[in-house]
Amino acid sequence: MKPLKNKLIRLVKRPVGFPSQDTWEYDFETIDELCDGEIIIQNLYISLDPAMRGWMNEVKSYIKPIEIGDVMRAGSIGKIIYSKNKLFKEGDFVSGWGGVQKYCRTNSKSVIKIKAEINDLPKHLGSLGMTGMTAYFGILEVAKIRQGETVLVSAAAGSVGSIAGQIAKIKGCKVIGIAGGKGKCDYVKNELGFDGCIDYKNESVTRSIRRECPEGIDVFFDNVGGTILDSALIFINRNARVVVCGAISQYNSTSIVGPKNYLSLLVNRAQMIGMVVFDFKERYQHAYEEIIRWTESGKLKSKEDIYFGLDNFYNVFQKLFNGNKQGKLILKV
Amino acid sequence: MKPLKNKLIRLVKRPVGFPSQDTWEYDFETIDELCDGEIIIQNLYISLDPAMRGWMNEVKSYIKPIEIGDVMRAGSIGKIIYSKNKLFKEGDFVSGWGGVQKYCRTNSKSVIKIKAEINDLPKHLGSLGMTGMTAYFGILEVAKIRQGETVLVSAAAGSVGSIAGQIAKIKGCKVIGIAGGKGKCDYVKNELGFDGCIDYKNESVTRSIRRECPEGIDVFFDNVGGTILDSALIFINRNARVVVCGAISQYNSTSIVGPKNYLSLLVNRAQMIGMVVFDFKERYQHAYEEIIRWTESGKLKSKEDIYFGLDNFYNVFQKLFNGNKQGKLILKV
Repeated sequence: MKPLKNKLIRLVKRPVGFPSQDTWEYDFETIDELCDGEIIIQNLYISLDPAMRGWMNEVKSYIKPIEIGDVMRAGSIGKIIYSKNKLFKEGDFVSGWGGVQKYCRTNSKSVIKIKAEINDLPKHLGSLGMTGMTAYFGILEVAKIRQGETVLVSAAAGSVGSIAGQIAKIKGCKVIGIAGGKGKCDYVKNELGFDGCIDYKNESVTRSIRRECPEGIDVFFDNVGGTILDSALIFINRNARVVVCGAISQYNSTSIVGPKNYLSLLVNRAQMIGMVVFDFKERYQHAYEEIIRWTESGKLKSKEDIYFGLDNFYNVFQKLFNGNKQGKLILKV
Repeated sequence: MKPLKNKLIRLVKRPVGFPSQDTWEYDFETIDELCDGEIIIQNLYISLDPAMRGWMNEVKSYIKPIEIGDVMRAGSIGKIIYSKNKLFKEGDFVSGWGGVQKYCRTNSKSVIKIKAEINDLPKHLGSLGMTGMTAYFGILEVAKIRQGETVLVSAAAGSVGSIAGQIAKIKGCKVIGIAGGKGKCDYVKNELGFDGCIDYKNESVTRSIRRECPEGIDVFFDNVGGTILDSALIFINRNARVVVCGAISQYNSTSIVGPKNYLSLLVNRAQMIGMVVFDFKERYQHAYEEIIRWTESGKLKSKEDIYFGLDNFYNVFQKLFNGNKQGKLILKV
């Protein structure tokens, strides 16, 4: 192989609160030889996820913290351009932990082959990727939604929430979203087909939940935490399930706000359940096929919000948390 | 029947924060005639429970709030002294919602007959009553403990916690308690047979959980809430269950402290589950028989902390919350 010049973004310090730009540094390295079993992936699309913020903290979690000096961890879709691995050939598209960089040299362990047209590749980070898997298993397996139930979804215009809510609709639930701003709420109601959407930037969430869910909430699929979680807890029904999928309002906070209304769980014999999508990996294939079917039949829509260039990383990372995005946030390399 | 002069304690205002003595008033009434189906119970023992505080708030809960002017709600054990109901005869002992009063005139709907020696009557408010049922179903059905798991119990010297922990021991778990003061901790370890007990008044709870539960916590049976719940959440294992049985640290608070570490549920795919014992009433009889067997074989111990006289109600009520009791708190009429 001829030597490749890789451009990469390294984590250089652990942020406190919202990460500043100097949390990361750009670097270059030359890749000039592969060991047996290794491949080189040219990253085409990099996934941006709120979970990235957690991976930067030095705490025990469901995944090891990113070490200082390491390439910033990220899911990605790429094309194999060199292979010394029998299972992969040059030109294959793969999905895996490619990191925020131009090329990823790796053994094949954290990579799977995907079959997709070039135009569909971004969807493999969105509704057909970890995002879709999180929504699918979260709403079906963790929340265990049942037909006719009322499901409330926070960050409903977001990558996971938008899909979780649509799956609940497909399964015959009444689905209300919470999103920020009229544009997002219109999208959630008119394009995604939710039964209603609460604009947390312009309405009282508590009062609006009372209006939109007069029969109470059976499932709250929460990506936000904070005061929105507290408002939802007021209205949960007996035997309700609150899925703690994320807490984007808290990830950059130096002092987490716990749900003050958690005793509503006791009164209502309800559960608050944490989930990590990796636990369902044996069944990704099944979910993938079902989501493809729903997508092809027009029942499930998804939107990718794609930005260009590694140099844009910090700007796009900020969009994860400032509400200034719609659907799945992706960086095209 | 000859007219009876009843002495009763009425709720006369809704407390904010810790109830002051003028939350209640003593009153008298004359009972002189029974309708068909009614009985008069002479209350012998009245149950004092932290839940009483919640029943005084005018909020939607698992049970209707006590109305202003009503007799203060309480479980009780009593003897039937007049009956116009075929199912009950004079002299029968019964358990039910007798209220904080000398006599209770009622139809039979909220009352069950109990067979007990006079000396065992208080136990029918403790380990053989609602208290024991709460511990039994909470630890076996809600927490679903499994042999070999590590179970942490807060308020471990209290009425419910002491029994929940002992049942977990009987089922082969490692059980650590949390209680206030050396006397209670010694009781929990030496008399109840817990594997350890953390003195929250004299140790750092977080540091002591780390020491006592080096393998983490599989089940946290929580009666306390607040900072103790937050400490426990730090150490929960994957798939842990946190049973929200109560939150005595918060019942008199005007501003509830939510569990700041609730995202530990996400990371550990754990659950926080609320319970209300009434949901298990179809199976009380089974639990009752099993608790009797454990008690008779010496495997399960319980303690009743009995005070005398209706006039003592407010003093004894205070003991529910100031930590100044051991085991089940009972007022003998």
